[in-house]
This record gives sequence, C-alpha cells and structure tokens, in this order.
Amino acid sequence: MHTIKELQDKVKDLFENRNYLDNPNELYEPIQYSLSQGGKRLRPLLSLFSCSLFGGDLKEVEDSAIGLEIFHNFTLLHDDIMDQSALRRGMPTVYKKWDTNTAILSGDTMFVIAYQYVTNTNPEILVDTLKVFNQTAKEVCEGQQYDMNFEEEINTSIDDYMEMIRLKTAVLIAAALKIGAISARASAKDCDLIYDFGIMIGLAFQLRDDFLDAFGDVDVFGKPIGNDIISNKKTYLYLKAYENADFEMKEKLNNAFALEGDIKVKKVLSLYEELGIREATEIRIEKLHNDAMKFLSETSIKEKNKDELYLFLNQLIKREV
Amino acid sequence: MHTIKELQDKVKDLFENRNYLDNPNELYEPIQYSLSQGGKRLRPLLSLFSCSLFGGDLKEVEDSAIGLEIFHNFTLLHDDIMDQSALRRGMPTVYKKWDTNTAILSGDTMFVIAYQYVTNTNPEILVDTLKVFNQTAKEVCEGQQYDMNFEEEINTSIDDYMEMIRLKTAVLIAAALKIGAISARASAKDCDLIYDFGIMIGLAFQLRDDFLDAFGDVDVFGKPIGNDIISNKKTYLYLKAYENADFEMKEKLNNAFALEGDIKVKKVLSLYEELGIREATEIRIEKLHNDAMKFLSETSIKEKNKDELYLFLNQLIKREV
Repeated sequence: MHTIKELQDKVKDLFENRNYLDNPNELYEPIQYSLSQGGKRLRPLLSLFSCSLFGGDLKEVEDSAIGLEIFHNFTLLHDDIMDQSALRRGMPTVYKKWDTNTAILSGDTMFVIAYQYVTNTNPEILVDTLKVFNQTAKEVCEGQQYDMNFEEEINTSIDDYMEMIRLKTAVLIAAALKIGAISARASAKDCDLIYDFGIMIGLAFQLRDDFLDAFGDVDVFGKPIGNDIISNKKTYLYLKAYENADFEMKEKLNNAFALEGDIKVKKVLSLYEELGIREATEIRIEKLHNDAMKFLSETSIKEKNKDELYLFLNQLIKREV
Repeated sequence: MHTIKELQDKVKDLFENRNYLDNPNELYEPIQYSLSQGGKRLRPLLSLFSCSLFGGDLKEVEDSAIGLEIFHNFTLLHDDIMDQSALRRGMPTVYKKWDTNTAILSGDTMFVIAYQYVTNTNPEILVDTLKVFNQTAKEVCEGQQYDMNFEEEINTSIDDYMEMIRLKTAVLIAAALKIGAISARASAKDCDLIYDFGIMIGLAFQLRDDFLDAFGDVDVFGKPIGNDIISNKKTYLYLKAYENADFEMKEKLNNAFALEGDIKVKKVLSLYEELGIREATEIRIEKLHNDAMKFLSETSIKEKNKDELYLFLNQLIKREV
C-alpha cells in the first residue's frame, strides 16, 4: 500500500509537463490552458488509491486515471458555457477567455483524448473499464440536465436533489474508485462495493461543499462564502430549510432570498441557524459517511491498508486536498 | 458479397424503431429527434459494405456501424451551433428547435452512446476499432476548427482546403470502410488500402457537393442551388476561381460576391464558367476517383465483388444514395 503522499506525487508526475498542443492551435491551446491549471486531480488520485488498496500495480491504472481527469475537465468546459460561469479555479473559463464555439469544440476534443487514454488500458480489463467509463459519462450528462431543470422547477424535493448530485458528482468519484479496483483485478464484489462506497463519499463531498458555502471558513474553503445564497442556488441547505419551515418561516425565507449582497447572506444564514440547517446537514453527511464505511467494511481490503484511506477521507472532508 | 440493396435494407433495419428515449426527457428527446430523421446513413452503409467486400460477417460490424452514425449526428448537433445553422434535412436543427445548451448536452450524450455501441464490438477487434474511431473523432474536430478558421482568413490555399475537407469529411468515410475491413479480419495492408481509398472517395464526394451547389440540378441535389455562393463560402470552386483569375477577373469576382440574391448567383456562375471552374472541378474529381481506384486495385478484394462497389460509387457520385 502506497502512502497518500506517494500517490499524490505519482498523480503530479502523471500530469506534469504533459503537452497537449498540436495543430490547429486554436483547438489545442484552450485544452492546454484547461489541463495545466491543476485543480485537485481528485479523480485520478482516487483511481490510484483504489488500485493500491486492492494491491494492484499502479501502471495498470495510469492511463484510465489520466482519462478520467481529462473527461472531468471536458465536462467543466461545457458546464461553464451552460451555466455561464466566468471563473474557474480563479481563472477565466475557456468560454469567457475565448468563446462558446471554442469551449464546445475544444471540449469535444478533450472528450476524445480522454477516450484515447482509456483505450490504452491493458486489453485484459479494457471492456470492463470502458463500460464503467461510458455509463458514468452518460450519467454525468444526465446529472447536468437535472441540475439545469432544477433552475426552472418550483418544487424540487431533497430526494430529487440527492439523485441529481449522485449523477452529476458522485458517479465519477465512484467510477474512479471502481476503475482502480478493476485495474487491480479485484473481485466483482469488491469492485461493486468500492463503487457504492464512492457514491456515499461523493454525496457527502457535495453536501460538504454546500455546507462550507454557508458555514465554512473562507481561508480553508478557498472560495468566498455565500455564493450559493447570493445566486439562490437550490442546495441541500436551501431545500432542507424550505422543508423544515412552517408557513411563517417560508415567508421569511422568501423575503431573505429576495434581498441582495451581504445583508442577504447574513439574513439567510440566521434563518438557516434558526431552522437547524447546520445540524441537519452535518447529520446527513455523518450518515452518508457511516453508509460509506459499511460498504468499505464488506470489501476484502486489508485492515492495515484502510488506515491510509481513513487519513485521506479525513483530509478530503476537511477539504485539505 | 451482399448487394447494395441488401446492405441498405440491413442498415434500415439497424436504425428502424430504435428507441433512445430515457430520463431526463429534456436530454433524450432531442437525441431521438436527431436520430430518427434518417439521412443517408452513408457511414454505417460503408462499414457494412466494406465488411462484406472482405468476406466478413456483418454481425461483427453492426455495433460499430451504429456508433459511427450516432457519432456523425453528434457532430452535426454541435456544428449547427457553431455555424448557426437553422435547418438540417429540411427540419429545424436541435439548437434552433430547443436551444444551445440542449444541443451541447444532448450532443455530448450522443457521443457517449456512440462509444457504448463501439464498446460492444467483439473484444478480439475492439482495440483496433477504437483506435480508428478515436483518431477519426479527433480529426473531425480538427477539421471543424480549420473550417471555422477559414472564415476568418484572407488567404486560404486549395491545399489548405483539401486538408480541411480531408479532416472534416473524408476521414470518417475512410474510417467507416476501415472498421468494416477490421471487422472482416482483413489484413493490415487491406485495412490501410481501403482507408486510403475512402479518403479519395470522401474528398471526391465533398468536391461533388461543392460542384452541385453551383452546377447541379435542384431536383437531384435536393437542396437549393447557389447556397454556397450566397454565403460567400470558401468552396473548391471559390478558391479555384480566385486562383485562376488575373487581376481584372479578381476585381470582377469581388464585385460579384458583393452582390445579393439571384443576381449574385447568376453573376458568379457566369464568372465560374468564364474561368473554366466547371471543367477544373470535374478534372479534380476524376483524378481523385482514379487515385481511389488505384488503392482499390491493390487490395485483395475479389474482382467480382468490386462490381457491386462500382455500382454503388456511381450512385454515390451522382447523389442517388
């Protein structure tokens, strides 16, 4: 079993000095821009982690891990057009720095490059890997569509929301882990269990993101607090607040969300506190975490290997990676 | 060897009553709309044709053939956004009927579905098939980028144009043929030769399209004549006209292209005739056709099988398929 530090270094090596430039330059320059920005590289790290947990050879998973990261970045290029996001990792998005057409076509090309890496996988495990990759890619598209639908809908339930973030975020985290397990030639049962574990971790990860937007420390979170509140985004907190609210409190929430700027954030946060949203969210995250641990306990992963995973999950939930 | 008619029926069967609908409906309805419009289904037909030419079992190529067609339609969804095209096959484009976001995301999903079909290919030939598919998908994106670049450029050479249409159009036709040959377990040499044959046929096919826009019979061509002229599109004819023109004729071309409507089409056509563009284009198409035949003659395809191919090519060039 490799240490987190070793795996992080390995992921860094995989992406460092990788050159995506080619002709025509108009197509490949935005790809180089997108893929050299760094980011957490969480998905390839999880693939390597899972491969190592199941005693596999990291070389077997490297290409798929790179493919997963490039796929993730492709989705960001297209999501940023659809969501009209101007900034990503503190830098102008491709769609803003260039234009919509560039973000569409460079994104499409990144999708192909992702498949080129996955195709380099050992033929012994190629079909299994591709099936996970294809299914996941489709689900991520479905998740983005549900996310856009929610912006138009009046009644979104918490169940709908959990299903949306399962598709939009959790399945790719779960797939990264499953592909790592496949690469290590883990049993079908272990592959499924680590996938289910990944779903729970992915959901917890997204709820933590929602939580930190409201109750986080700006220095640790790395983004300004209250963005979701400012944009009336239907997060777990928002939906839970309306679920918990009686008629009078719903009116107060409506009034608060109709405000603008710092006063809006302050007012919404005080209503969230009044409605017990902080605790409710923490309880839900804790429950997801426990469910994840149950799946993990059923795998054949050696107990001593799990220590490194617990350490990593702790960092992940605290957002130190 | 199957007859063209048998292969066309087979392609029809492959696509008839295929249901792409799923949840969320907003994502899959445009896919159903796009894929149920028909069109020539030229690429899957070529895959089946090639498989049959090399004596293969059509079952081995069916999934890849479907994947190629879905990939082609995905590129149309995205191209129509980039080119702001309102109509496709006489129907509103997805981007017009719905919106840009829908065309982006439904397109992305079609790309995944294309890969899902290709992944169903017999594992014996999966890696070879995927490599052709990936490389081709990347080149088609490059071709679209060059096409957009040309709109901004002042000096586009005929060589640049031929390279652009090689990437944008010919490689997918060549790939369809090569994947058919791979499915029939043809030799590497035969696979490469049928690919090169496909490139020449693909280039000829595009030049024929350019030609028919100017000199075609509207009833046979199926689209109005002069569209490319109206939109000042840099076609082979346009570029050849400027290449052949002396200073005075260049002035005349500039003046003609500055006009509008029917008078513009009439004026440009008369200058094309004066500059010998009709003959020059026919000669170039003939040359491409001859080059294609040279590649074909070097394959191990039985002479009697080629008759069906000649018949088909004749229909293709005349645009009867």
